[in-house]
Amino acid sequence: MPELRKDPITFEWVIIAGERKDRPHNFSKAWENGELPPYDKNCPFCPGNEHLTPPEIMALRDGQASTGWLVRVVPNKYPALRIEGSTERVGKGMFDYMDGVGAHEVIIETPIHNARISVLTIEQVQRVLVAYKERILDLQKDTRFLYILVFRNEGKEAGASLHHPHSQLIALPFVPHEVMLEIEGMKRYYAFRERCPFCDMVREEISFGERVVAESPNFLAVEPFASKYPFETLILPKLHHPSFADENECIFEEFASFLREVLARMDKALSNPPYNYTLHNTPLRGHNANDFHWHLEIIPRISTPAGFELGSGIYINTVPPEESARILREVTYGEKELR
Amino acid sequence: MPELRKDPITFEWVIIAGERKDRPHNFSKAWENGELPPYDKNCPFCPGNEHLTPPEIMALRDGQASTGWLVRVVPNKYPALRIEGSTERVGKGMFDYMDGVGAHEVIIETPIHNARISVLTIEQVQRVLVAYKERILDLQKDTRFLYILVFRNEGKEAGASLHHPHSQLIALPFVPHEVMLEIEGMKRYYAFRERCPFCDMVREEISFGERVVAESPNFLAVEPFASKYPFETLILPKLHHPSFADENECIFEEFASFLREVLARMDKALSNPPYNYTLHNTPLRGHNANDFHWHLEIIPRISTPAGFELGSGIYINTVPPEESARILREVTYGEKELR
Repeated sequence: MPELRKDPITFEWVIIAGERKDRPHNFSKAWENGELPPYDKNCPFCPGNEHLTPPEIMALRDGQASTGWLVRVVPNKYPALRIEGSTERVGKGMFDYMDGVGAHEVIIETPIHNARISVLTIEQVQRVLVAYKERILDLQKDTRFLYILVFRNEGKEAGASLHHPHSQLIALPFVPHEVMLEIEGMKRYYAFRERCPFCDMVREEISFGERVVAESPNFLAVEPFASKYPFETLILPKLHHPSFADENECIFEEFASFLREVLARMDKALSNPPYNYTLHNTPLRGHNANDFHWHLEIIPRISTPAGFELGSGIYINTVPPEESARILREVTYGEKELR
Repeated sequence: MPELRKDPITFEWVIIAGERKDRPHNFSKAWENGELPPYDKNCPFCPGNEHLTPPEIMALRDGQASTGWLVRVVPNKYPALRIEGSTERVGKGMFDYMDGVGAHEVIIETPIHNARISVLTIEQVQRVLVAYKERILDLQKDTRFLYILVFRNEGKEAGASLHHPHSQLIALPFVPHEVMLEIEGMKRYYAFRERCPFCDMVREEISFGERVVAESPNFLAVEPFASKYPFETLILPKLHHPSFADENECIFEEFASFLREVLARMDKALSNPPYNYTLHNTPLRGHNANDFHWHLEIIPRISTPAGFELGSGIYINTVPPEESARILREVTYGEKELR
């Protein structure tokens, strides 16, 4: 049973999950050479191997056919947190812990084993986004959960353990540290200026121009002014929308196309780099609309944080965001080049 | 010129240092196979190549000989921060930045190219610690600096760019985020209990026993209760000493021997893993003695943080600290096995 433990000094939570050591790692050399087949008979996420995953939570299908899924959501077979248990804190001396309560799900993004988001059709990316939204709306009914983080690991260096394109989500019984830093910062900014800092950022970055990667009617992609990582990219809605899950699905077509474009630019500029993206959504309860402005953070894993970063929390970024933004803007991008 | 930029929402500082892209990376396959030679004619840190580094800041020598250094400190040739510049904050719209002011030095730990801390003599480790102390005492005279972080990168996966054994230090015009988290936590704990949490931790961990790696008269090594990384190890003085640089050098022999033992246990248990260690010392000014208890954090780089960790700040640790502590305790360790 996983355990959530609280650092007695910094109050940061950590998940201790010994069982996850045993999860399979299915990385072949082909992965690195970009020569993966479209179907792998040993892959638990490939069509026909549905029996290798825990029972399906939901699926999106083309029409009424009961097989032939397009997107499939299943529980993680080696979960970092489990649905059973209590959120009661227990003390042992100066140390606090609780059951490792949460949900850990896998969103299988396509039946095609060797795809990347950047080569899926817009309709397919849109289905993935719909799955994110539906899972958030369903899980937030469980009042033990205060936050849901959707994230994606692409490539071994980004922590992925399986090739097949998938995202994950983890529901948590507290708001995680990194999100709290943003919420506290937003409250501080609001107290000072009575405006949302992300709304201000949209306005200022469009006016400066030099860190903009791409722009669509409702979305902006920028390399943040204080980027911690080379080619770190932020996608945000131009209007003040706290919650991704409350977005009208009519906006998802535009967002799917925009997300795919930004990832395609990155794949082309950096030759299909390993990367993570995380969806920062508003907490599920206890916060008001001024406290959040949802956004998606993309971090290519092309640099290695060293002792200085780990010990100080200060990142040394050797690619100024103005330079990476220019490189990403200058990539030739056209609908024709995509499948 | 490097620049320090402040995140407009979280207030975290980031170093943007485009020049550091050009630094050399001298990693051969031999590194991975543990077959490095004791001397490499192309290594800028090997004896005879002193002209390849910037001018020496200090050196420890055996007796009065002017050559034949044992430990040598030089400025980093590709510094993340520079000594010239002003700490004046400048605003551009909502964004704040300042010159990349600081110091970035390299402590070359031994003339021997293929050593690790775990195989140096106690006297040599002690010299390295003396160099840390002397450099901190010298740099803290510069009133622009509020913090000095000493750190060590062992192995490519830990961010090292050169083989030759070396530590580094960076002096900063502010107290870094990770240290502030500890200071704020210590103040909170002190306000609640009127005791130092690290002092409490020493007492409780010795009494629990299960997370203790090693103990000497004045030092304790433990796997923290809420370890973020597998085999993360904390070394701390048993008594409440805020400042490493104020330690009497008579304690350095014991600390050198203890540090070497802990690293030797780790090298043996994990087959010479890549690792980082960082020395968390008290800020240089503006804090009182209750606010800090110095310690050294060792993090082997044997796991890959993924999207969840980057997006939430919550780490999933698949090796419970009680288990890693037992493994490290059970390693056979004797003076005889070391050079």
